[in-house]
Amino acid sequence: MDRRSQSTTTSSAADTGSLHCIVKLGGSAVSCKNELETINEDNLSIVSSQLRQGMISEPSHGMDWSRRPGSTAIQTVVDKFDDKLESQCKRLIVVHGAGSFGHFQASRSGVHKGGLNKPLVKAGFVATRISVTTLNLEIVRALAKEGIPSIGMSPFSCGWSTCKRNIAMADTSTVVKALDAGFVPVLHGDAVLDTSLGCTILSGDVIISHLAEHLRPDYVVFLTDVSGVYDRPPTEPGAVLLREIAVRDDGSWSVLQPKLQDEVEITVAAHDTTGGMVTKITEAAMIAKLGIDVYIVKAATEHSARALKGPLPHNIPNDWLGTVIRLAN
Amino acid sequence: MDRRSQSTTTSSAADTGSLHCIVKLGGSAVSCKNELETINEDNLSIVSSQLRQGMISEPSHGMDWSRRPGSTAIQTVVDKFDDKLESQCKRLIVVHGAGSFGHFQASRSGVHKGGLNKPLVKAGFVATRISVTTLNLEIVRALAKEGIPSIGMSPFSCGWSTCKRNIAMADTSTVVKALDAGFVPVLHGDAVLDTSLGCTILSGDVIISHLAEHLRPDYVVFLTDVSGVYDRPPTEPGAVLLREIAVRDDGSWSVLQPKLQDEVEITVAAHDTTGGMVTKITEAAMIAKLGIDVYIVKAATEHSARALKGPLPHNIPNDWLGTVIRLAN
Repeated sequence: MDRRSQSTTTSSAADTGSLHCIVKLGGSAVSCKNELETINEDNLSIVSSQLRQGMISEPSHGMDWSRRPGSTAIQTVVDKFDDKLESQCKRLIVVHGAGSFGHFQASRSGVHKGGLNKPLVKAGFVATRISVTTLNLEIVRALAKEGIPSIGMSPFSCGWSTCKRNIAMADTSTVVKALDAGFVPVLHGDAVLDTSLGCTILSGDVIISHLAEHLRPDYVVFLTDVSGVYDRPPTEPGAVLLREIAVRDDGSWSVLQPKLQDEVEITVAAHDTTGGMVTKITEAAMIAKLGIDVYIVKAATEHSARALKGPLPHNIPNDWLGTVIRLAN
Repeated sequence: MDRRSQSTTTSSAADTGSLHCIVKLGGSAVSCKNELETINEDNLSIVSSQLRQGMISEPSHGMDWSRRPGSTAIQTVVDKFDDKLESQCKRLIVVHGAGSFGHFQASRSGVHKGGLNKPLVKAGFVATRISVTTLNLEIVRALAKEGIPSIGMSPFSCGWSTCKRNIAMADTSTVVKALDAGFVPVLHGDAVLDTSLGCTILSGDVIISHLAEHLRPDYVVFLTDVSGVYDRPPTEPGAVLLREIAVRDDGSWSVLQPKLQDEVEITVAAHDTTGGMVTKITEAAMIAKLGIDVYIVKAATEHSARALKGPLPHNIPNDWLGTVIRLAN
């Protein structure tokens, strides 16, 4: 009930043709960081359920009709469908990182540095794509199981490529056609061809920036394994969650909430050595500069559930834990 | 030894930039027909090995670096690579059918008939793609394990679409870029958007015709679960394997070998009611009309091994079992 009443206050993009939301499923949020190629099944299941609740007006039937291991048949779900049930799914794109998938293969072979003429790099490229598409398939299945009409789309197959690691070609028309047909495209960080280096890794965060710039969603949600952006590594004593960051037109940014005494840029830069948070803020700031609110929030919590039912009110509720990055007024 | 000497007599396309071969892995050849979503592991393994022997000059190291079930680590294969080993892989495209993957989901929901506004069709579209991409990933992994630099590419993600079930848009540039980078694209029959019907199924055979027309391979091999094209269902007593079929410019065709007494068109048409063989001959004839030889041969046999080391000599060896369809002189 609560969900329904809340969702009516949000701008439904399903009918207008505009994009409601881009959600980043952080690799560390849906896979087990220290266990090679292992899904965090609990998190993935909760996140899928929260996505469904945030994006679809009515519960809908499962769309993963795969044979379960040990069974010889497929559970008959077909009879449950009737032509009356037309669940409206908001226009949504999911992008996920690699987490414990792909990272081993990419780093051991040096795919990000290019050099496809080296047998090790070429093999690593193949191995990386196998690993990340394995994760993609599992995420697509988890979303489909919840009734989200998810469609896996690999950047490599979409013909996306880079030049000196920057996006050189990334036509979004296939993604838009999938959205127009009522599907939820599920993209991922991928090994791609690079016109200068031969090949490299195109990260999920760069994909999101690109999609946000071209498709202008109402808001963007990063689901991670911590509660948001802190002023220092969150494991350190006294780490403070930055609740609201304002980005100015010139790209500079400052913390609006909470009021901090220290020079924030410096403490966040120190943070970067452990978690790449400055990179994340920089990418998020580029999106926010477009006038698109960005939420960074811990996956599979009540706070992620609220973010996915977003957008959040302009005055961020006190009991919501996460970081909002938005354009300064 | 035999392999090496034979392969030097074939036109290697790796250097010239032209496409050596398109191989169709019939769904029924690599999956178990009567067992839902079950790979025919033995066949797939043999076919992968035969493909490697036919296409790569030297044995190469495995490129599937996935974690094996039950293991927590990935076997270290990285150390085996050195920069000297540069296996030349002939330019090759693999296309596979669905077999016992995808068929259940597609037929129960009627995806091929279109109507994406119906919840059942939309769910079936999602379920079909999950099933066929599951098979695609397994085939890519099997090929990579053999050292073939295989890259899964879904027609949907490539932006391919149809209009009234005929290909409307199927840009091959991403496939060509993958070939140019030294990879082996692995495509598959897929659920795609149809500008007239909403959606439909794009079959592997139609994909092959399209690729053959645009990329002009030296020859095309169809790996199936029977020895070739027969004059009647091969399970019927007295069924005769058609060894050589000549296609004329006007599309008509006749059997050159063996010399048959009966009117062949009629008996083959009768065959169609059981196995769609006329459809297969029609597609093969369209390719042969382009001047491209087509071999239809049973997968995972010595005959498929020879076809994959092809092209075969113009006078087909007596001990080779299969069907050659080519342009009449």
